[in-house]
Amino acid sequence: MGQSLKIIPLGGLEQIGMNITAFEYGDSIVVVDCGLAFPDDDMLGIDLVIPNITYLKDNINKVKGFFITHGHEDHIGALPYILREIDVPVYGTKLTNGIIRNKLVEFQLSETTRLFDVSFGDVIDAGELKVEFIKTNHSISDAAALAITSPAGVVIHTGDFKVDFTPVYGDAIDLQRFGELGRKGVLALLSDSTNALKPGMTMSEKTVGHTFDTIFHEAADSRIIIATFASNVDRVQQIINSAAKFDRKVAIEGRSMVSYISTAASLGYLSLPDNILITAEEMHLYPNSRLVIITTGSQGESMAALSRIAANLHKKVSIVPGDTVIFSSTPIPGNEKNVSRVINELSMQGAKVIFQDTHVSGHACQDELKIIYSLLKPKYAIPVHGEFRQRSANRELAISLGMKKENVLLLKSGDVLSISEDEAVVTERVPAGPVFVDGLGVGDVGNVVIRDRQYLSENGLVIVSLAVYYDDGEIVAGPDIITKGFVYQKEAEQILLEAKNVAYDSYYLCCERGYDFNKTKNVIKDNLADFFRKQIGRKPMIIPIIQKV
Amino acid sequence: MGQSLKIIPLGGLEQIGMNITAFEYGDSIVVVDCGLAFPDDDMLGIDLVIPNITYLKDNINKVKGFFITHGHEDHIGALPYILREIDVPVYGTKLTNGIIRNKLVEFQLSETTRLFDVSFGDVIDAGELKVEFIKTNHSISDAAALAITSPAGVVIHTGDFKVDFTPVYGDAIDLQRFGELGRKGVLALLSDSTNALKPGMTMSEKTVGHTFDTIFHEAADSRIIIATFASNVDRVQQIINSAAKFDRKVAIEGRSMVSYISTAASLGYLSLPDNILITAEEMHLYPNSRLVIITTGSQGESMAALSRIAANLHKKVSIVPGDTVIFSSTPIPGNEKNVSRVINELSMQGAKVIFQDTHVSGHACQDELKIIYSLLKPKYAIPVHGEFRQRSANRELAISLGMKKENVLLLKSGDVLSISEDEAVVTERVPAGPVFVDGLGVGDVGNVVIRDRQYLSENGLVIVSLAVYYDDGEIVAGPDIITKGFVYQKEAEQILLEAKNVAYDSYYLCCERGYDFNKTKNVIKDNLADFFRKQIGRKPMIIPIIQKV
Repeated sequence: MGQSLKIIPLGGLEQIGMNITAFEYGDSIVVVDCGLAFPDDDMLGIDLVIPNITYLKDNINKVKGFFITHGHEDHIGALPYILREIDVPVYGTKLTNGIIRNKLVEFQLSETTRLFDVSFGDVIDAGELKVEFIKTNHSISDAAALAITSPAGVVIHTGDFKVDFTPVYGDAIDLQRFGELGRKGVLALLSDSTNALKPGMTMSEKTVGHTFDTIFHEAADSRIIIATFASNVDRVQQIINSAAKFDRKVAIEGRSMVSYISTAASLGYLSLPDNILITAEEMHLYPNSRLVIITTGSQGESMAALSRIAANLHKKVSIVPGDTVIFSSTPIPGNEKNVSRVINELSMQGAKVIFQDTHVSGHACQDELKIIYSLLKPKYAIPVHGEFRQRSANRELAISLGMKKENVLLLKSGDVLSISEDEAVVTERVPAGPVFVDGLGVGDVGNVVIRDRQYLSENGLVIVSLAVYYDDGEIVAGPDIITKGFVYQKEAEQILLEAKNVAYDSYYLCCERGYDFNKTKNVIKDNLADFFRKQIGRKPMIIPIIQKV
Repeated sequence: MGQSLKIIPLGGLEQIGMNITAFEYGDSIVVVDCGLAFPDDDMLGIDLVIPNITYLKDNINKVKGFFITHGHEDHIGALPYILREIDVPVYGTKLTNGIIRNKLVEFQLSETTRLFDVSFGDVIDAGELKVEFIKTNHSISDAAALAITSPAGVVIHTGDFKVDFTPVYGDAIDLQRFGELGRKGVLALLSDSTNALKPGMTMSEKTVGHTFDTIFHEAADSRIIIATFASNVDRVQQIINSAAKFDRKVAIEGRSMVSYISTAASLGYLSLPDNILITAEEMHLYPNSRLVIITTGSQGESMAALSRIAANLHKKVSIVPGDTVIFSSTPIPGNEKNVSRVINELSMQGAKVIFQDTHVSGHACQDELKIIYSLLKPKYAIPVHGEFRQRSANRELAISLGMKKENVLLLKSGDVLSISEDEAVVTERVPAGPVFVDGLGVGDVGNVVIRDRQYLSENGLVIVSLAVYYDDGEIVAGPDIITKGFVYQKEAEQILLEAKNVAYDSYYLCCERGYDFNKTKNVIKDNLADFFRKQIGRKPMIIPIIQKV
């Protein structure tokens, strides 16, 4: 019996985002993707979340590189942070690398990072492993599945994918190659579970183009504003196609939209008719009926261009009654309320808001998953990229196609799955889980700090300060009380005066009893907490400060 | 030309919840509903939000009472807070009043409050106004529309309603009375806009009962747990009906579920077969196949019973593999992520989760609105109860039925609409808007306090304290630094040491320059802010405390 391949997801299974999976055989490790996650609502003040790569650092000599499936943040976003810690090569397709390169420039890593462009069909030697890039379709161009060949067998990672028979740019997913690999024998399949609860097939990206044409036809007299994901280059292409067809000029709003469009255009993934793009400043030269604005903000993000336009805070664009605003997107779970807010604000200013048939998903529904399972016929399946319930649905689907229950595995981040023709078992656990990025600090904000922020956010703060003589403990200044986020200080003078007395009495009581410094502070804290709870039913964070002089 | 009727919404139009509308003619005011709103995500630490009733207090001699359409929190929840300020009679139907009575007991207001039970068809004299209660259907029994008769004309307020031809309890909506009133002439209609974007008819509550029967039949071997809105008594009735039919015992979990069920049962709105209810403690006496648990938590609320069961924190109930869990609800916007979390947790423990066809809305869709408009044929229409986009859709619908554009009015809370056969115009504005309840305090937390909480929640806190001599300004203790929610204090010793030096240097610099106390504090604050921004890219709230001794 030969050696096993180890499959080690370091993130992505407990939350949306932060996709990163290590594949290890002998002295070789390849890492698929290196994504970030956006903070949950309760991760207060956190800018973003990146994976814990302790395991890679501990085995840095084995790591052959990052192999990137596509250019979305949840697959590439942590790269600049991680590459500062481990400098290993990065492999990706052309557009993916173009997007990564922008990040590296921003983080001043572009000079040092070894970034290699890969074409579909290329096979990269990575020690005892080989990695082949296979064409797929997704909501960003140039997405790839990876076939990882080890002496223990071939493992396929679909990345995020859909089956689009009529994509806007480039070829349809390379189903033939999947069939060929399947025929030769596939040990395991890791597949995208996002839409595993949804029956049928995901609609082709092209259908959105038809909807745009219809809307452009019907809204002939009004300005058209379309919000979509900046990274969805094909969507932008279709907007531009409709604009060209209906003789409209196109202005681009939003920093990330400008960035993706220029990257995609410069690499040949976006074709722009001559002179179709104009700046926001040039818009006044054209009637509304000849204008389209493509903008960020389709998720209601408060700082994005569309949100600022809706709230009348945008410098260059404001809504005029009769504008047609298209959301070419669906709200990502958690963003529903923000999107509603923006729609309400747009409506209040007289815009007509459209979101019917103006978006398709980039992820495979059940029938597409069945196509891939049927082409590959893997021995083992490991549903990835989804909440537990979606991965469960992917598992049920695999079982419904005849796979053995015990061969379809739902892993946790940090699990080390040892897999061979003979068996697939979780043999150990390695460190995994979120690392918080806050400002320039990475990992220096943890659960204790977050808990304090949560407490402060709910209850506010009361600081009680006094200065006392070192010798006899007499109070020489204070007690003074400062509150923040607790109560209107001016309107609560009486209660704060009484609180001072509580602190004063508590302090001298402690002196009498000969309590030490820390015990005294705790007594003051407890008595004030008690006082505020009884008086106004609140429990502010209380910080006593006693200075000995 | 006679006097006008004034319609004054004091809440409910800018946010979901907090429904309250005053109708004033001459020296008489009737107030329809008195609801609360739940705080938005950015209202940190706020427990709930109630309306500003300054206008009612200023005109207290005119106020004839509150007339309540139904017993949901967004229509009755502010009553106990408001009745503490203005003691006026309250009129409602029997179940509505039963629910209100529970609240009054809790707030020790049940002795003093004048609460009057009204039957459908009753007309209450309220000075120059008369109020008639008309039977409607909704997701709680005993919902009423109100016909308010004034010398200026009759105004109908639908309350929250749907048209259910086959309700579970009691009669269908009294469409005949709407027709009769319409034939006599209706000045204005205020109608529920919640589902005005949705075509067709809302399904009958009865359809959910059929789904329950099917699920009970299919899940014959497993325990069934059903989460729904505690106030939806008809839904609970249907669960109990299915349980009886399939010979299962029913346990109730969740404080509010127990409270609503006992109120509804004692008032005759819920019919319980003998011995069908058991306690959680008795569940072990029955096999899983003979158990149903009805529970709160259908919105993923973290403290509700189902969430605690899912997280394995519930004292009496834990999931066993094979359990069937039914969400008989849809997520209210904003709760989607919490509901997903609970579903994932339940799935991880082996429960089968069902949410298809297990809920119907309590609000009228477009065809139901058309029925009401067509029966009443009002001169003016005022869409209420909905976000702006939903109220806009209600407006479009009214116009599509032939109403004049200028006669369909979208108001803002605080608008005073003067309305008569001749015209309907907003003549003035009165105070309106949210009042925050935090603990026992009502209105003592406002935007400044909330902003501080937001700042603290994002950035944490740095307190720098020093004691100085009164005479010469020499530092005699400190500077000391305390942080909360900022950074792991132990891991940041170096940076906090440097921060002390910044504070020390800043203080003496200010002394040299002869700055006063406040200016010195500001300089210390600014220099520390600068220091932290450069060092770790963060901007904590900085609180300098200087005590003179």
